[in-house]
Amino acid sequence: MRKVAVIGIGQTPVSEHWDKSLKELAGEAIFAAMVDAGRNSVDGLFVGNMLSGSLNKQENLGTLIGDWVGLHNAEAIKVEAACGSGGSAFRAGMIAVASGDLDSAIVVGVEKMTDTKPTETTAALATAADADWEAAQGVSFVAINALVMRRYMHEYGWKHTDFAPFSITAHANAANNPNARLSFAITETDYQKARMIAEPINLLDASPIGDGAAAVLLVPFENVNSKFTGNGSPVVTIAGSASATDSIAVHDRQDPTWLSAAALSAQKAYDQAGLSPAQIDFFELHDAFSIMSALSLEACGFADRGQGPRLGLDGDIFLRGRIPIATMGGLKARGHPVGATGVYQIVEVIQQLRGQAERNQSEHAQIGMAQNIGGSGATIVTHILRK
Amino acid sequence: MRKVAVIGIGQTPVSEHWDKSLKELAGEAIFAAMVDAGRNSVDGLFVGNMLSGSLNKQENLGTLIGDWVGLHNAEAIKVEAACGSGGSAFRAGMIAVASGDLDSAIVVGVEKMTDTKPTETTAALATAADADWEAAQGVSFVAINALVMRRYMHEYGWKHTDFAPFSITAHANAANNPNARLSFAITETDYQKARMIAEPINLLDASPIGDGAAAVLLVPFENVNSKFTGNGSPVVTIAGSASATDSIAVHDRQDPTWLSAAALSAQKAYDQAGLSPAQIDFFELHDAFSIMSALSLEACGFADRGQGPRLGLDGDIFLRGRIPIATMGGLKARGHPVGATGVYQIVEVIQQLRGQAERNQSEHAQIGMAQNIGGSGATIVTHILRK
Repeated sequence: MRKVAVIGIGQTPVSEHWDKSLKELAGEAIFAAMVDAGRNSVDGLFVGNMLSGSLNKQENLGTLIGDWVGLHNAEAIKVEAACGSGGSAFRAGMIAVASGDLDSAIVVGVEKMTDTKPTETTAALATAADADWEAAQGVSFVAINALVMRRYMHEYGWKHTDFAPFSITAHANAANNPNARLSFAITETDYQKARMIAEPINLLDASPIGDGAAAVLLVPFENVNSKFTGNGSPVVTIAGSASATDSIAVHDRQDPTWLSAAALSAQKAYDQAGLSPAQIDFFELHDAFSIMSALSLEACGFADRGQGPRLGLDGDIFLRGRIPIATMGGLKARGHPVGATGVYQIVEVIQQLRGQAERNQSEHAQIGMAQNIGGSGATIVTHILRK
Repeated sequence: MRKVAVIGIGQTPVSEHWDKSLKELAGEAIFAAMVDAGRNSVDGLFVGNMLSGSLNKQENLGTLIGDWVGLHNAEAIKVEAACGSGGSAFRAGMIAVASGDLDSAIVVGVEKMTDTKPTETTAALATAADADWEAAQGVSFVAINALVMRRYMHEYGWKHTDFAPFSITAHANAANNPNARLSFAITETDYQKARMIAEPINLLDASPIGDGAAAVLLVPFENVNSKFTGNGSPVVTIAGSASATDSIAVHDRQDPTWLSAAALSAQKAYDQAGLSPAQIDFFELHDAFSIMSALSLEACGFADRGQGPRLGLDGDIFLRGRIPIATMGGLKARGHPVGATGVYQIVEVIQQLRGQAERNQSEHAQIGMAQNIGGSGATIVTHILRK
């Protein structure tokens, strides 16, 4: 396989974009990535999206968006893996370029979730779980995560407030990100007083949905002639890429508080990159709920089992800490336009590696990791990128 | 890229499977392919499906099905490209194996369309077209094809009955296929008297929807030690694979009666295989409507422009003709479970190449082609397979 480089990135703010359609959002991110890379054409388009069929009455999304942005004749598909759609689309695009089949590709993650009634959106999100054995019983997605969090607190003896640093950190970082949905800081008091959603998950444990799109432009590294892209940014390469699955329903897992698919895909990515967790400089994890931050940190080898919250309490996850997370706000505060999220994570890793994260720049950002999760730990895609 | 071999195939009948869920259908086809290949595990699962989100309230389909069939930890995604989802998933699985990233993969196409009201299913199918500029105007999918057929008849002077051989051939072949939805022959009189659906398309110009699943098991050819699979079938390899797109809306095309994405993807596949149309022994084309048979034959170089119906009238498309099509019934009579169709086509090409098509066996079947279309010519995937 050829080594693959990312030479262009683009994103829209995560917001309620009532004035922009799905394809317009995607186009905005794609055009930004093309301008960033200094290219106006590619061989293939890979769209990460979960809900366009149910919420936007639009499928054939690859071709719709390719047509809209003028990628005439380029091949195009949509990749769906629930909230892991973006990371999965990135991986599909990377493999197509790595294989030699395509010499360039754009991966765009896009989702438009705020034009529909909240009940419709919640019902659509429940399609990430097992329709017959979870959703049909009335368990919404937040309810499933609440069950996991409750069990985890019981097993390991954590209090609810021990999870506060995850949300506080994400919001602090989002405050400096112009693309974040919730770009304001919160305090521990805010966290403690937040409205309960599905006990023990309160409003500040949960990430907000939103409309948004993020895009990257991929080429084989062997075709890159310089250490810098057209606009002078350092070229970033993909050092590790892996995806793994667990049972779709939480009740079928051996241990609902352990993300085995995260452990497996991270280990594969570490092996490919020849790296260990200690060599990862920062980690864009899938903090859809604060419990997921703890579980991801453990499964990826940054914390001992059951000790994820310790990294928050000790400050290790801060921008100047040992393993900064959610450096641009994460799902929690940048926002979670579900099928787009995985590509936002990749874009943010690249912002850090390029030194373009401005006030949130992590020092010594040489190697970054992104992890995108579909379902409650069911589908997990891990990528390691480096300068 | 590594050459990829198909060593297992499986399919369910296309029918109204009210007693089987989406995952059960997919599982049935996957298990058949595994048994056929003599394997019970693979590294990755690629699901071709269009409508599970809107009709079956289920996304995260890759992981759901992987979990169901016991592919624990294997990576899994769903690929969507409207009615071209199956062919696109096959191509994604092939690239993953060809790249060296995976050493084995199952591609399954699955769709379940008959549990919902016909109006819901029709509305869901319209999401293959442009939601804003086609579907919102009330043009259903059959209506779009009717506009194309009317224009084509006007341009080239064909009468409606000139299209009869496409439907008659498909039904004659389906009569011998136990997996076909409409396994009965029809006469020219039946065709002429069929109920009008969207003039000039009548009931016998149109393919039936249905529930069904088809699966193939892929490995690198270099890992195949024999010319025969575990159960003694000849090993089939993929000689060409390409995908291309056109504008999503028909009204945006330079010529609505020319499938430019078919011409482009077929030419790429011919180039990869080092073949010309004259060397293709049979062709599983996307006969969702009889007009599409004519257009595909032309775009792929089997007929002159505007002369597709001539191949039907001259008998060239019959099982013993120059370029047999729809050898197991095609979309027209085997049935069109939309996201599964592209994988049914591949399975049927392999049945022919292996000499397992029984009463429909085409003589000298050494090289077969399959073409899967998403939207009204918007997304077109072409594969060439050989013994």
